[in-house]
Amino acid sequence: MSNRNRLNQQIRFIVEIDKLKQIVRQSWLTDGSRRENSVEHSWHLAMMAMVLAEHANNPDIDMFRVIKMVLIHDIVEIDAGDTFLYDQENTESKRDREIAAADRIFALLPADQEAAFRALWEEFEARNTRTAKFAYALDRLQPMLHNVITKGKAWQTHGITISQVIDKNRPMEEGSAILWEYISGLLDEAVEQGYIAE
Amino acid sequence: MSNRNRLNQQIRFIVEIDKLKQIVRQSWLTDGSRRENSVEHSWHLAMMAMVLAEHANNPDIDMFRVIKMVLIHDIVEIDAGDTFLYDQENTESKRDREIAAADRIFALLPADQEAAFRALWEEFEARNTRTAKFAYALDRLQPMLHNVITKGKAWQTHGITISQVIDKNRPMEEGSAILWEYISGLLDEAVEQGYIAE
Repeated sequence: MSNRNRLNQQIRFIVEIDKLKQIVRQSWLTDGSRRENSVEHSWHLAMMAMVLAEHANNPDIDMFRVIKMVLIHDIVEIDAGDTFLYDQENTESKRDREIAAADRIFALLPADQEAAFRALWEEFEARNTRTAKFAYALDRLQPMLHNVITKGKAWQTHGITISQVIDKNRPMEEGSAILWEYISGLLDEAVEQGYIAE
Repeated sequence: MSNRNRLNQQIRFIVEIDKLKQIVRQSWLTDGSRRENSVEHSWHLAMMAMVLAEHANNPDIDMFRVIKMVLIHDIVEIDAGDTFLYDQENTESKRDREIAAADRIFALLPADQEAAFRALWEEFEARNTRTAKFAYALDRLQPMLHNVITKGKAWQTHGITISQVIDKNRPMEEGSAILWEYISGLLDEAVEQGYIAE
């Protein structure tokens, strides 16, 4: 493949992923003015990785890899859409929809980069490595933080209870016990304030 | 400082930077549906760094540092606003407004992280290192690409001519001659198609 073809493929991918800016999530901006999209969420996780790295259970993990992982982790939503964490029905079909999306979207890249991006995404999804576990912890922490700050806006819209929040988010402890402990304290306060149902 | 105080400071910064999602730029999304914000732009640059790294004039630069640089480069806009590249009047006051913003926003972080973030931002602004020159090349390429794809939407709104575009963007050549050559070809076509005034 010529260099020019390679660059054309790369640019095509870069243009394609612009669509992720249109995928709206359930989380609200902290000022409650609108829901955020998956690109905004991904950038925020990358910033959290930069700032909160020292709180990983294993602080010598490769933070560059964590950041690449969170930057790309939602790209499949361009085709598969965002699936709300507490949406049991759509969670069942999520994996199949996302694999089809990964097949199509990452294939826009030259083969070596397709393989690298696919590997990053699969590692995030499998959550077996320390890197992926910390990336996952950030992915769980950010929407809870937004929910606490907006007085439970997304939780209340969907009638989510504290036990659902704890069940779904506790696994982040495997990536960062400190951040789980921190957000647990905020969750207790949120229950007290009535931001989330018991 | 206790660990808990340190974490509280870090979270305060993470919540503060949520405001960058509200800073709207002149560039339009590639489908022309709305203008993009500075967070979306920053994420896109980080993705471009991942994909286009090999086209840096010096391909052995620290790409992790490039990515951190582009992720944080617009945070000062929370206070200073986005200044359009071709807006001469506001460009003159830009530096002062942005320094005041950096002073306030990065100071939310613990001192060691404040220094690290400030150093990244100052390096980007000074554009003296190869790392900063490549980050700058991406920061110039992305809006031109969006402009070409949207048939000159932002250029036409502001009556920008091809000589202005070349004058303002040619310095990206110092970061990536290949990417400058690539976008120059697209600019030629944009002039031919009438997307930008001669």
